[in-house]
Amino acid sequence: MSSSATATPLPLLPATPVPSEDEDEGPHTSITADRAATRQARLQRVGQRPGTLNIREGALAPRLFLISYDDTFFEEQEYQSYEELLACFRQHSELKHWIDVRGYNDLELMQRLQEDFRIHPLQMEDVLNDYQRAKVEETQDGLFLVSRMTEFTRLLDIDDDQLSIFTGSNYVLTFQDDYEDCLETVRLRLRTGRSNIRRRSPLYLAYALTDVVLDHYYPTMAAIGDYLETLEERIFQGRPDRRVLNRILHIKKDIVRFRRLVYPEREKIAELLRMPEEQMPEEIKVFFKDCYDHAIQALDLAESYRETVSSLVELYMSDQANRANEVMKVLTIISSIFIPLSFVVGLYGMNFQREGPDGRINYLNMPELYSPWGYPILLMILGLIVIFQLTYFYRKGWLTNK
Amino acid sequence: MSSSATATPLPLLPATPVPSEDEDEGPHTSITADRAATRQARLQRVGQRPGTLNIREGALAPRLFLISYDDTFFEEQEYQSYEELLACFRQHSELKHWIDVRGYNDLELMQRLQEDFRIHPLQMEDVLNDYQRAKVEETQDGLFLVSRMTEFTRLLDIDDDQLSIFTGSNYVLTFQDDYEDCLETVRLRLRTGRSNIRRRSPLYLAYALTDVVLDHYYPTMAAIGDYLETLEERIFQGRPDRRVLNRILHIKKDIVRFRRLVYPEREKIAELLRMPEEQMPEEIKVFFKDCYDHAIQALDLAESYRETVSSLVELYMSDQANRANEVMKVLTIISSIFIPLSFVVGLYGMNFQREGPDGRINYLNMPELYSPWGYPILLMILGLIVIFQLTYFYRKGWLTNK
Amino acid sequence: MSSSATATPLPLLPATPVPSEDEDEGPHTSITADRAATRQARLQRVGQRPGTLNIREGALAPRLFLISYDDTFFEEQEYQSYEELLACFRQHSELKHWIDVRGYNDLELMQRLQEDFRIHPLQMEDVLNDYQRAKVEETQDGLFLVSRMTEFTRLLDIDDDQLSIFTGSNYVLTFQDDYEDCLETVRLRLRTGRSNIRRRSPLYLAYALTDVVLDHYYPTMAAIGDYLETLEERIFQGRPDRRVLNRILHIKKDIVRFRRLVYPEREKIAELLRMPEEQMPEEIKVFFKDCYDHAIQALDLAESYRETVSSLVELYMSDQANRANEVMKVLTIISSIFIPLSFVVGLYGMNFQREGPDGRINYLNMPELYSPWGYPILLMILGLIVIFQLTYFYRKGWLTNK
Amino acid sequence: MSSSATATPLPLLPATPVPSEDEDEGPHTSITADRAATRQARLQRVGQRPGTLNIREGALAPRLFLISYDDTFFEEQEYQSYEELLACFRQHSELKHWIDVRGYNDLELMQRLQEDFRIHPLQMEDVLNDYQRAKVEETQDGLFLVSRMTEFTRLLDIDDDQLSIFTGSNYVLTFQDDYEDCLETVRLRLRTGRSNIRRRSPLYLAYALTDVVLDHYYPTMAAIGDYLETLEERIFQGRPDRRVLNRILHIKKDIVRFRRLVYPEREKIAELLRMPEEQMPEEIKVFFKDCYDHAIQALDLAESYRETVSSLVELYMSDQANRANEVMKVLTIISSIFIPLSFVVGLYGMNFQREGPDGRINYLNMPELYSPWGYPILLMILGLIVIFQLTYFYRKGWLTNK
Amino acid sequence: MSSSATATPLPLLPATPVPSEDEDEGPHTSITADRAATRQARLQRVGQRPGTLNIREGALAPRLFLISYDDTFFEEQEYQSYEELLACFRQHSELKHWIDVRGYNDLELMQRLQEDFRIHPLQMEDVLNDYQRAKVEETQDGLFLVSRMTEFTRLLDIDDDQLSIFTGSNYVLTFQDDYEDCLETVRLRLRTGRSNIRRRSPLYLAYALTDVVLDHYYPTMAAIGDYLETLEERIFQGRPDRRVLNRILHIKKDIVRFRRLVYPEREKIAELLRMPEEQMPEEIKVFFKDCYDHAIQALDLAESYRETVSSLVELYMSDQANRANEVMKVLTIISSIFIPLSFVVGLYGMNFQREGPDGRINYLNMPELYSPWGYPILLMILGLIVIFQLTYFYRKGWLTNK
Repeated sequence: MSSSATATPLPLLPATPVPSEDEDEGPHTSITADRAATRQARLQRVGQRPGTLNIREGALAPRLFLISYDDTFFEEQEYQSYEELLACFRQHSELKHWIDVRGYNDLELMQRLQEDFRIHPLQMEDVLNDYQRAKVEETQDGLFLVSRMTEFTRLLDIDDDQLSIFTGSNYVLTFQDDYEDCLETVRLRLRTGRSNIRRRSPLYLAYALTDVVLDHYYPTMAAIGDYLETLEERIFQGRPDRRVLNRILHIKKDIVRFRRLVYPEREKIAELLRMPEEQMPEEIKVFFKDCYDHAIQALDLAESYRETVSSLVELYMSDQANRANEVMKVLTIISSIFIPLSFVVGLYGMNFQREGPDGRINYLNMPELYSPWGYPILLMILGLIVIFQLTYFYRKGWLTNK
Repeated sequence: MSSSATATPLPLLPATPVPSEDEDEGPHTSITADRAATRQARLQRVGQRPGTLNIREGALAPRLFLISYDDTFFEEQEYQSYEELLACFRQHSELKHWIDVRGYNDLELMQRLQEDFRIHPLQMEDVLNDYQRAKVEETQDGLFLVSRMTEFTRLLDIDDDQLSIFTGSNYVLTFQDDYEDCLETVRLRLRTGRSNIRRRSPLYLAYALTDVVLDHYYPTMAAIGDYLETLEERIFQGRPDRRVLNRILHIKKDIVRFRRLVYPEREKIAELLRMPEEQMPEEIKVFFKDCYDHAIQALDLAESYRETVSSLVELYMSDQANRANEVMKVLTIISSIFIPLSFVVGLYGMNFQREGPDGRINYLNMPELYSPWGYPILLMILGLIVIFQLTYFYRKGWLTNK
Repeated sequence: MSSSATATPLPLLPATPVPSEDEDEGPHTSITADRAATRQARLQRVGQRPGTLNIREGALAPRLFLISYDDTFFEEQEYQSYEELLACFRQHSELKHWIDVRGYNDLELMQRLQEDFRIHPLQMEDVLNDYQRAKVEETQDGLFLVSRMTEFTRLLDIDDDQLSIFTGSNYVLTFQDDYEDCLETVRLRLRTGRSNIRRRSPLYLAYALTDVVLDHYYPTMAAIGDYLETLEERIFQGRPDRRVLNRILHIKKDIVRFRRLVYPEREKIAELLRMPEEQMPEEIKVFFKDCYDHAIQALDLAESYRETVSSLVELYMSDQANRANEVMKVLTIISSIFIPLSFVVGLYGMNFQREGPDGRINYLNMPELYSPWGYPILLMILGLIVIFQLTYFYRKGWLTNK
Repeated sequence: MSSSATATPLPLLPATPVPSEDEDEGPHTSITADRAATRQARLQRVGQRPGTLNIREGALAPRLFLISYDDTFFEEQEYQSYEELLACFRQHSELKHWIDVRGYNDLELMQRLQEDFRIHPLQMEDVLNDYQRAKVEETQDGLFLVSRMTEFTRLLDIDDDQLSIFTGSNYVLTFQDDYEDCLETVRLRLRTGRSNIRRRSPLYLAYALTDVVLDHYYPTMAAIGDYLETLEERIFQGRPDRRVLNRILHIKKDIVRFRRLVYPEREKIAELLRMPEEQMPEEIKVFFKDCYDHAIQALDLAESYRETVSSLVELYMSDQANRANEVMKVLTIISSIFIPLSFVVGLYGMNFQREGPDGRINYLNMPELYSPWGYPILLMILGLIVIFQLTYFYRKGWLTNK
Repeated sequence: MSSSATATPLPLLPATPVPSEDEDEGPHTSITADRAATRQARLQRVGQRPGTLNIREGALAPRLFLISYDDTFFEEQEYQSYEELLACFRQHSELKHWIDVRGYNDLELMQRLQEDFRIHPLQMEDVLNDYQRAKVEETQDGLFLVSRMTEFTRLLDIDDDQLSIFTGSNYVLTFQDDYEDCLETVRLRLRTGRSNIRRRSPLYLAYALTDVVLDHYYPTMAAIGDYLETLEERIFQGRPDRRVLNRILHIKKDIVRFRRLVYPEREKIAELLRMPEEQMPEEIKVFFKDCYDHAIQALDLAESYRETVSSLVELYMSDQANRANEVMKVLTIISSIFIPLSFVVGLYGMNFQREGPDGRINYLNMPELYSPWGYPILLMILGLIVIFQLTYFYRKGWLTNK
């Protein structure tokens, strides 16, 4: 057996999805579409025998990894065949093992794993169905933990994948449907000899995995926070259009969804903390308590973002009303100035005749028109009207920018 | 006795009610009308002796089905007379039986069933009254479970029927007021010999029935989800009219109603999970735990749809305001351009006389009119005014599409 | 003693208050006024010695009824004097009795009842004060139950009266301030010999009374439901005015109030269900469980109506905005068409002179006016402008009905 | 010792603050200002040693009253010196005493009271700080109860004062910072020999005091209710202006505050009811149960007022929109009628020349102007346009009052 | 050893941030930006080994203070080296010590403190990460308390710093990342010999520190309250612009955040109160109970401010609508008056010819123009129209200021 740790670590953070200013609004900003896939998967299952194993369409072909370790020993290897892995696992029962199954698309393999690790059919179904809430259940050998890993995508959606963890006396068995994951940091810590994980029980590895998943909620939240700031700036800069509202509501949906993902996580950890000593030793509980604090803080942050979103909607709505006001002010100022003027010039466009049909002079019929100063005086009057109105509007504050 | 399994399975999913684009808005989109029937039924009951059996108007004539089974044996038959069924049921007490009563419209039969299966009068009343919340109660022989089966109708309503289940040591007795139901998949599983249901106790059959009902919430939710997407698209495509709001509010009502239907279901299962071992063995509880997860997920989805609906209402309202803004912008642009122009041309339509009554020339009275370039210069001025204003409005962003 | 059952039963349902289309909006639609009477009554009590018996102003003179019964015996009689009633009650201690006091307006009688039936002064005060929430309390002889009977009045208000029930080992003592009540159906059932009530303990009679009160919530809710439909139709039919909003808010208040009346009823029954066997035997509890379901369903319905009301308010508000839009569209279309036209005709109303003062022809000054086709061409231009604008507005969808 | 009961009772109810129609809107309608004083007091305390006694600025000079009583004896007296009072109190240990301290402004006296009645420093601080929530705490000799007395002021604010009650085996010690209080009714009942208070323990006196405080919530609520009705009427009568909204929001604040004052009161009583028999005997609990009902009813009423307030805000907002609609309708009707008319008359104000410069008659240039019936026909056409438009607007319902 | 207490006390209250009227609205009024730093800090931690000590960027260099005291002795000194401090602390184990570490920026020192005071790595991480919710945890020697100190900054943000407190049998160890803090008042009380703190256990010092932090919530709330009043006044004074809404929403965010800071504080104290006697003696609990009341009052105040904020938003929105109404009224009045007048004068600007081409007089063509009184009568008619309209608008109340 030789130690191999050749996998290059994944970049810690995927580039955060700062949306470009001029991006298209494709269907991805739809408010409702995000769970279509889940819905589809769910529908296929309707009326099925409970415990029936179903491979989700589009699932990846499984890759099998085994990390065997104790205080002093470490080996990491990808196996092409399950038999080899199992042989190695069974042979070294004195070591602790992390069996890491990435990809579900092999029904037979899944059934063998179910049998060999004495997994309850319903739990195996949960693993494969892939849309479980975070939860913890007891198994014959230890615990079954479901965590949800989140990622904020370039399309402003929250992608979530499931990490299923089974613990046993000397192993941790994890399932996920992704070749690249956020657990690489745990592997890195395993590879270095000084890590706590190497010394402690598999339960501590399960904790470390759960903790990493929880830690990865922060990049998601940070991306949402950054995006909210972008949106806020746009509203402040001036002309928030309909797409901005659309995105605000989309982000709101993300936040609500995030909250729904994290809330069960908190519940799960609270349940772990309530477990008796023999299932969950006090020394591990201390660490899960820390997780619990993190989950609460993530929920706090989500709550805070919700408030921000509703403030943004209020700002947007108020802006909409403001712009309507502005349009109306322009209309009112121009109309109010020119309509009276138009009346006055219309007045002197009338054709009242100075000379009656009988030739008599009607001195009362628009004598102004015959005055030598008529026109200049009229222009002055018009000017005064304009000045008066402008003063009035200025006093009302309608002429200044706001 | 010969095994007969001739019934053809029902189609799994009724065609989902994708509403046509140009459908009429009949009374079915009423927000308030959906519970009129229930109300009517309720009113008839006012002041009645508790436990009085009342056949709901329009109930179907009962059809009696008996499925007798154990690990190795299976028989399925429709009986024309209750006596025959009872005889067969009593004769084979070593088998497990599913007595399936579809249709209530026979008071005498109901009373005989009540006596023969020792059903409490109030529980029999609950069966027939047909609008109970999901619940679980103890009976002398086992449990009384009420489930609500939902269907999303072509008229955008949620139809819900009641499935009443009584369990005994060797039987399950179900009541529903429908000949075609969503339980056919359970029958199919019974017919095949390998099913779990054949091996396990009647309680497991009760679980399987409950699970199927829960599974059928997903098509309902999927239909609502699809419809929400249709509505969202309409709003996005442009001119959402009043009917769209109407439908949004109608769907909101459906979602609220769905939530109210599913919430007691969750409570019911939680109560089952709290039951002592002798009433509800641990091995069955594992399965109900799975049901519990499903119920929570259905509620989650309903919650998510509620958020979507309120986002849609916000979008609709904002759109309404937007369109008002647009109308006003058109008015303002046209008025602002032409009202000043009208003033100017009105000005030169005035009749100030160059020649006073005394024949003196009033050189100040509108000399422009006599200038050879008067008219072309005026046209240029008018053109400049228009250009100035268009520039102003363009700068404000009022001329671009938004 | 002779059996007498001559009282004619009351009609089951008062005519439901379908408000006429053209009714006046008197003060009865006030949103705030409904509790003025209660407030007044409350104020009088301020600072009084607890347990002081106060007859509410306008209380009815008491009428005393006694129904004595057991499995085989039944007698129903109105007594003019309390002494006679008491004598008859004490003489036949082997029978069960229902002492039915209708009307409170006799302080002395109330005090005698308090003493003879060992009622706590505070409970007697509760009976007379008449605005208690539904509740249950223990007494020396049994239970003290307060129920609230509701009625939906012609003025769209919810009228509620109090029914106070004291149970003892062989009697039920009820108080209400109404000669006509909703309990007649219970009396009818008592009169017929086969009724459960005749066979069972007074607690069962108390249950039957409570159940009847709960059943009477349904006509109230049905009336509210019908009225909501009327309101919805009005909004749909077209021009919802301010009065409609007013009524919606009034009904909302009713629903909120109904909820506040029924919620304690549910609490009361839940408390009854938690009572130990000796206070509330299991066989009666089964029936109260049924009551509990009914109370929950009434609350469910109230919740559903609240949602409907808020949807109606949203519809109303959106309609208001729609009508503003429509008004503005008319203004915009007419202004946008005619203001440019007015400019054009104003243009050709100018008086630029073809002939300068010096007799020179200014060929540039409005040559159009001298063209033989000037006027017809202008009319064509005007027509084209109109056609262009109508096309534009049609494309925008402003000309079609919506 | 001689019985003295010369104090004249206070009027039961202060004149309810019905605000005059034309009152000024001074700063007192400010939404935010009401807690400035409390804030100030709080700020002074920042960083102080806990248990430091601080006399609030503006506190009254203390007046000391002692009521000594038992079944047969009663004496009421105001003492000028604390020593005399204490002497009298200690001398007659066989009597029950109510020591009533009104006004805090004597630090030394407060410290002596603290020592003599073994009051915990923090509790004495609570007494003097004067802005505690209602609460109950144990003391060495009995209980420490804090109640809040409310009053609805002429300025539409809720004034609240603190009543601090200490109970001992044979005394009740009360503190308040007011010479005139709402407890006078209790004193009246004490003075008359037949009262329950005279016979029962000091705890009963504490109950009576608490009950009177609770009873005084009703005048406050009644005043708020009356004021809400006034506001509603104003909205209904027609032109609700900004001040009405202002007041609605002010009242809303009062209601919210009232709720926050009463809620702890309910909690306090609930805690009293949970106390063990030796601290709170069952016979007193019965009375506090009554208090509990009253507190719940006050909270109910407050909740109901909150609903009313939000309905009033909705009405106000809808009215605002209505008035905007009305303004726009006037504009639209007048513009729509006259703008087309103006176009038509402008058309015939054009100067197209019948006679070309070459003297040729342009028969197509406005022949209407030369028709003998031109003007009357035009007037008829104008009239028809007006009639057509009025009909159109009438059909739309814009001409009728609403 | 000599007693040194030379540090001058900090001013009790930082000048409250009353914002100047004309301040710039920089990015600091952003609604979303306030937690960017926390987010950043959080991100750095993602995937790290739990218990890893990380110095936050920008942390201060540590300063070490030691206060040693008992009833009779007091010494306060700043140490340049940790060794000296530790020596002094260990040497005088009969005294009580407060070790006050201000600034974190020395990883090695932190690790030594962790070891010497047996702090759990996760707790040390909490100390340094600096964004923990208030909480209490047990340690090997006593308790670990986290408090959050708040300050309302000139930029309208709430600054919060963390105070971490470890208690042991004879010491209190505090950490904060600030040289100037709000704990100076506690030091002052320590310096004076009579203080309770000097006599009681270190737990009491921990209480005193917690209490001071809680007391400092009041200046924060007072500043927010003052600022709300400023905002309210601005809205009342007249022209609330967009910046006002912006600030209201910013303050709302502050209040929400404050609530989120204080809520865990309340939880923390509630948990302290639930602790068993040996961990938290009754005599200290009495004081924490007082803290609990203060925390609840702070939350109450925050709740009250939230209500105020939402009232302000409603006022702002209503004002916006009001101003739109006002603009429209001006437009409507001017248009309604002058448009009809313009029509009339346009009418008499028409060129209908009195003399037909054939020389015949068309007596019907505008005879008014030839009447000698035509013009004066027309002017009168115009005047009457204006008077009629002004009367109409006056009656509608549109001319008065409101």
